[in-house]
Amino acid sequence: MATATALLAGLEGVGRDSSGGYTRLAWDGPTLELREWFAAEAIRRGLELVEDGNGNQLAWWGSGTDALLVGSHLDSVRGGGAFDGPLGVVSALAAIDALRAEGFAPSRPVAVANFSDEEGARFGVACLGSRLATGVLAPQHALGLRDDDGTTLAEAMAAQGRDPGAAGPSAWLERVGAFVELHVEQGRWLADGDAAVGVASAIWPHGRYRLDLSGQGNHAGTTAMADRHDPMLTYAAAVMAAAAAAQEADQRATFGRVLVQPGNTNAIPAQVTAWLDARADSEVALERLVERILADTRAAAAVNGTSADLTAESVSPAVAFDAVLRDRLAGLLEAPVLPTGAGHDAGILAGHVPTAMLFVRNPTGISHSPLEYAEDADVEAGAVALARVIRELA
Amino acid sequence: MATATALLAGLEGVGRDSSGGYTRLAWDGPTLELREWFAAEAIRRGLELVEDGNGNQLAWWGSGTDALLVGSHLDSVRGGGAFDGPLGVVSALAAIDALRAEGFAPSRPVAVANFSDEEGARFGVACLGSRLATGVLAPQHALGLRDDDGTTLAEAMAAQGRDPGAAGPSAWLERVGAFVELHVEQGRWLADGDAAVGVASAIWPHGRYRLDLSGQGNHAGTTAMADRHDPMLTYAAAVMAAAAAAQEADQRATFGRVLVQPGNTNAIPAQVTAWLDARADSEVALERLVERILADTRAAAAVNGTSADLTAESVSPAVAFDAVLRDRLAGLLEAPVLPTGAGHDAGILAGHVPTAMLFVRNPTGISHSPLEYAEDADVEAGAVALARVIRELA
Repeated sequence: MATATALLAGLEGVGRDSSGGYTRLAWDGPTLELREWFAAEAIRRGLELVEDGNGNQLAWWGSGTDALLVGSHLDSVRGGGAFDGPLGVVSALAAIDALRAEGFAPSRPVAVANFSDEEGARFGVACLGSRLATGVLAPQHALGLRDDDGTTLAEAMAAQGRDPGAAGPSAWLERVGAFVELHVEQGRWLADGDAAVGVASAIWPHGRYRLDLSGQGNHAGTTAMADRHDPMLTYAAAVMAAAAAAQEADQRATFGRVLVQPGNTNAIPAQVTAWLDARADSEVALERLVERILADTRAAAAVNGTSADLTAESVSPAVAFDAVLRDRLAGLLEAPVLPTGAGHDAGILAGHVPTAMLFVRNPTGISHSPLEYAEDADVEAGAVALARVIRELA
Repeated sequence: MATATALLAGLEGVGRDSSGGYTRLAWDGPTLELREWFAAEAIRRGLELVEDGNGNQLAWWGSGTDALLVGSHLDSVRGGGAFDGPLGVVSALAAIDALRAEGFAPSRPVAVANFSDEEGARFGVACLGSRLATGVLAPQHALGLRDDDGTTLAEAMAAQGRDPGAAGPSAWLERVGAFVELHVEQGRWLADGDAAVGVASAIWPHGRYRLDLSGQGNHAGTTAMADRHDPMLTYAAAVMAAAAAAQEADQRATFGRVLVQPGNTNAIPAQVTAWLDARADSEVALERLVERILADTRAAAAVNGTSADLTAESVSPAVAFDAVLRDRLAGLLEAPVLPTGAGHDAGILAGHVPTAMLFVRNPTGISHSPLEYAEDADVEAGAVALARVIRELA
């Protein structure tokens, strides 16, 4: 029997990067090591380990249908924190250990999931494993996604001995009756409200959009400012427009990734490609937000003599978690109910089975950063809460 | 005997990249191939090939002192054009061929130079070979410069069998009495004035500055706009400030390269590092330009809650080419005299020996781009002009 904090401490060395945080990308070294770790933890507990054609790992306690699924993911963004993902996996394993130690015998199967590529940090689409398993994303589209080195998902899977032809809807989904994902909170809602654990109400709709800005590469020293077609100027205008539009309406718009061609210090760029992450409290509001950012960017493009095209790479609708399950868990745990702007595998599963999320307090409120944090006591409180949920539901 | 156009055509396949242009970085594959090509061309002509400790290649026609040096460089920026650099080298070889065919016997030695790493596209400092050869740059500083992969210049040279300990002031400089560099024009001055060849008056002072912007990495979905410390917003303000300040005073300011950490679509960046290329018609004006850009950037940094630090990586003073030599060549060629905002090895050599530059018309006016161009007739006119200069001076 292991505590959640002890299990988490065992992962400290895997994928640590120069940021002081973690870089655990799908089908890459540290994440492969974590998959082996998950398999070993499942086998050690006598859980039946099944990997589907999308790389999702499920460890089964009991067999049959109408299972209660718990768990989360083990991958991270580049330079991410230690909790986003792993906390939900270790808490599920620790909860099972605690329930078994008490002699609890579930009346329905319980399975622990490690979903593949939740962050989308390598291939650009978040929740890749759960989207494929639920049929939300077509495998032919997913398998052709490329990472920054040009490697496709199909190639990355094949390089690890997986058959890309097996990607797609997973049989286990038919066996699952409910899903509960525990996750570190990615804001200060619980910290400000002085609660260790909360229950999610909804996930904001969320889109990732690629902004392609084409201009005219030229010499930085000999080209007069008036003669330029500099896409970097249009990019700067897009960044400003996104921040202004989101701030005004209490929504979110972020440019966290930008590529410049050719990327010489002494050359006006020919091309700037950037990614806009936008979220709002309704789908209509999200559409309006993105339209306004694009309109402002196009106005700047006209002035700068560049093009500006926006392509939606993924748009996730609003997710309202199952109200009955949410209220039952909030009552059971006497926990507050809070919304989130972050996407999760639970948001994908919610379209198919009754789904709930538990959040664990993060005193920094910071996530996707080495400063993401949870106190040991709160980690344990989360695992205890998850054990209570399993006892209640299974 | 080869024409300049034929020699240039022979280089078409070397270092061609997906932009349709050329990427020929110092001590990298295509540039190594061009070094071999230069050596073979020298040997074929019975010129004595000497490589100094900095990777500069000189091919000598005759021996002794007070030599006339001609030539340019063979490296390029990423995605650069076919003419910036190679045109000066092939024109020098073609001019020697033409003079020999006429039976011309020079009264002083003539040498053709291929300067190493003129663009600075790999290690960040332009004119690295000529700066080292003239003692303008200390070898201990240069050898520690790193490329994007973290490889130092010393390591890159050693990997090609060169002794980094030999870098530094070159003996050949004592043997040179004058330098004439032919180069494709990097603006539309000659095209607008309808002249095939011009003579340079001066090079604007020019600086490269690294802008380090630090903020707070965080989740793009869960962090309210008001709670952010987003260095991308400060970067956007810097880009806008640079364009506005340079436009107002008819100077040049460019951001062509930016790196974002951690570079996730769904994370507010923790760090943005960008490079400012700034040029003005006087050193005082350049200082004022950069000061104003930094002041505006710092004002934005204060609003955004990020830091903003600017470090000069290289600053080249204004270069006024030797007036006597300039007027002599302009008279000889009946060519117009024009200034340039671009740096060149000639700008470095000008501090040590009487130096001049010839420019060849570029109908697009575009440089550091695949659209950089010179008509065959103008390439030949340039080589003829250079041959006349050699006959006049040697």
